[in-house]
Amino acid sequence: MSTMEKAIRIASEQRAQALEDFKELVRIPSISTLPEHGADIKLAASWLSARLETLGFENVQIIPTEKHPVVYGEMLTAGEDAPTVLVYGHYDVQPPDPLNEWETDPFEPVERDGNLHGRGASDMKGQLIAQLRAVQAMLEAGELPINLKYMLEGEEEIGSPHLADFIDSHGSLLESDLCLNVDLGITAEDIPSITYGLRGLSYFELRLRVGKSDLHSGLFGGVVDNPAIVLSRLIAGMKDSSGRITLPGFYDDVRPLEADEREAMNAMPDTWWLEQSGAFGLFGESGYSTGERAVARPTLDVNGLLSGFTGEGSKTVLPAEAMAKISMRLVPDQDPAAIHAGLRAYLEANIPAYIEWTLKEHASSKPSIVERDSVGMKAAIEALEDVWQAPVRFVRMGGSIPVVGLIQERLGIETIPLGFALPDDNIHAPNEKQNLTTFFRGIEAYIRFTHNLARLSSK
Amino acid sequence: MSTMEKAIRIASEQRAQALEDFKELVRIPSISTLPEHGADIKLAASWLSARLETLGFENVQIIPTEKHPVVYGEMLTAGEDAPTVLVYGHYDVQPPDPLNEWETDPFEPVERDGNLHGRGASDMKGQLIAQLRAVQAMLEAGELPINLKYMLEGEEEIGSPHLADFIDSHGSLLESDLCLNVDLGITAEDIPSITYGLRGLSYFELRLRVGKSDLHSGLFGGVVDNPAIVLSRLIAGMKDSSGRITLPGFYDDVRPLEADEREAMNAMPDTWWLEQSGAFGLFGESGYSTGERAVARPTLDVNGLLSGFTGEGSKTVLPAEAMAKISMRLVPDQDPAAIHAGLRAYLEANIPAYIEWTLKEHASSKPSIVERDSVGMKAAIEALEDVWQAPVRFVRMGGSIPVVGLIQERLGIETIPLGFALPDDNIHAPNEKQNLTTFFRGIEAYIRFTHNLARLSSK
Repeated sequence: MSTMEKAIRIASEQRAQALEDFKELVRIPSISTLPEHGADIKLAASWLSARLETLGFENVQIIPTEKHPVVYGEMLTAGEDAPTVLVYGHYDVQPPDPLNEWETDPFEPVERDGNLHGRGASDMKGQLIAQLRAVQAMLEAGELPINLKYMLEGEEEIGSPHLADFIDSHGSLLESDLCLNVDLGITAEDIPSITYGLRGLSYFELRLRVGKSDLHSGLFGGVVDNPAIVLSRLIAGMKDSSGRITLPGFYDDVRPLEADEREAMNAMPDTWWLEQSGAFGLFGESGYSTGERAVARPTLDVNGLLSGFTGEGSKTVLPAEAMAKISMRLVPDQDPAAIHAGLRAYLEANIPAYIEWTLKEHASSKPSIVERDSVGMKAAIEALEDVWQAPVRFVRMGGSIPVVGLIQERLGIETIPLGFALPDDNIHAPNEKQNLTTFFRGIEAYIRFTHNLARLSSK
Repeated sequence: MSTMEKAIRIASEQRAQALEDFKELVRIPSISTLPEHGADIKLAASWLSARLETLGFENVQIIPTEKHPVVYGEMLTAGEDAPTVLVYGHYDVQPPDPLNEWETDPFEPVERDGNLHGRGASDMKGQLIAQLRAVQAMLEAGELPINLKYMLEGEEEIGSPHLADFIDSHGSLLESDLCLNVDLGITAEDIPSITYGLRGLSYFELRLRVGKSDLHSGLFGGVVDNPAIVLSRLIAGMKDSSGRITLPGFYDDVRPLEADEREAMNAMPDTWWLEQSGAFGLFGESGYSTGERAVARPTLDVNGLLSGFTGEGSKTVLPAEAMAKISMRLVPDQDPAAIHAGLRAYLEANIPAYIEWTLKEHASSKPSIVERDSVGMKAAIEALEDVWQAPVRFVRMGGSIPVVGLIQERLGIETIPLGFALPDDNIHAPNEKQNLTTFFRGIEAYIRFTHNLARLSSK
């Protein structure tokens, strides 16, 4: 039995412990966007650094940034001829609201119907644990054939505001041959896939204010403009009822899709999308299929709206302020800076002079496309096909993983995107879960990837 | 010295006690729309019924309705030849939010710059206390020359949902010659006025839902429609950027304004409106002046907007639901039922089939116009002109007082609208206040009105 096979067997025997680790990490409510969870962020970072030390990693550090720290650790025992892989992940999670739509406590993980339910289970504590348990099994089997460096951040869910600075100031520490990004998923429980294209993200908060304070709509209705209506008109002017974004120049830099790409994107029928989303119907830009719109066309969404009185019953208030959170998913070769400038120009042209307004950029990341025929990619494909006994699909994903573009730009290395979330895992939504069959297959896939990469690199 | 003059002197000597009464009543947070304030509603009702009993009123009752009770009491000592006046008021108040914009606790009244600050000070606990102190002074002076019945409700701020039923089932108890509605104000501290026209109100809550739960905007953006954008588009389609309401048929029943009415409405310059509102600029329907738009043109406002993530920072959520509170102020001869039907037809025509939606009517009241040359009106005009030593202005008001139309319809009596709020009192907004000079003048005006009415009726 090879050391790889031995590691796979050990991992299989340790499933109960893997699940315990998984639950322990999900129990820590490491919500990066809410200041009151600062201590939980620290706790999650400590949990991970302690685990790296237990595994025998060296130079383990919790490195502060201006907000939440990066956990670093390295195991460079495979020698100079073996490849060095930078493992990227994040230990922070989204807020759980709306809380009342959760069937169980988001931070008390529960096994149900073959899934582990809890905030962060799929995005991405399950992936972190799968990767760590794979390393543990390989070490117990007697061979870790590549060098590893871990870089686990705590700010992914707030747009990684300090990661670029961190990478710039720790360039030699992070020096590697390629990056393994585990913040990903596959197409379905029985369809292994690799995400080679990711959308970028521009995320804004727009606030309009018409006066000093809220007024009575009977006394001042018709006299003072309504910021919620002005905001609605501005939003309505950003996207038409056919789903096409109408901000000036928005589509100028969009790279047209190749015929073979479009074909691959149409693998899943609309019934599948309906089921995955739980939506009452599908809707998007005319001229493109659902699969194309999901991953390869840019979007504009309102993520939040707030104005006036929102409690039960009625209050005849003329609000002083209205707020919208508005984000765009970008595709190659759109540039977040140009998108920001275009939005600002639209607002400047359309907001009446008597309204005070602010536009704040919460996040900005470029879209990215990864090489499909590198050695690392081959190692990943072979690993997935051996575990699933099914051909790998190459997919582009609708979400944004800004770090892929960032690492390419700052460290000059390619990323292998390999993780085991599923599209119906409810990430960023109530009742998030991780499919456990896929989680355990993921551990095996990480073991195989590691050994494949060592083998293919030495040829 | 006449009993009227004596009553005026007594009221003047009792200003400190009037202010104490005022503060006591404002301290009770009788918010009708919030279930957790049910006990405070009861407390306010008890306070008022106890005061009526202390004054010697008879048949004092706290009469339950399906929600908040009506306080009733009568003093029929003036005899059958004297007129009987039904005094209408309400003891409930609006919620104080946004709380952080209050300079002092909304329910701990504070005197500052000649005003009493607190939620409900102007709308309308100050008016209730002024009327009660006027009655007390007349009783102490030895003559209450008319018969009084009090009907004080606890649901005005939630649209008086049970008042019509209450009036219908207590018709003989409420039988009177006319109604004195004290839920009103005057144009300015030095400009006495009587509000003869009031706008009606239609208040709706619209909810749109696209699916079972919130989704990740990266995974499903472009696949599932965004309810906040659909809602924005619907709202944008209700009113154009010139301020004209574009709901089909909305203006069909609007009675054109007479030239003399328009002239009266233009008494105050735009600088006055700017100062009163605290707005950065004025805006409304083109073709009409600010004063006309404020009182005699129909309006459409969004009173509340809510969707998705509204906390600090960013969350890349595709919301499942979006909500708007939308209200219209109506003018003669618009009919709330027709307006409701028109809105529903617009929504049916414009909401995509794959969206589940509900439209709930929170309030519905007709606009009203009161006779300007009745005996009651003459008594009120003379009272105001004697107190202020200035001519009374007849004004139409932008707000809605549904009870005026209701009492006309159900009891067959006219209303004399006489109260002492000011336009800059911040009613329904943070830092509500009652001007105290006007409050004390109001007490005198109620005494004079009572004696004038008795004198003019007996001729």
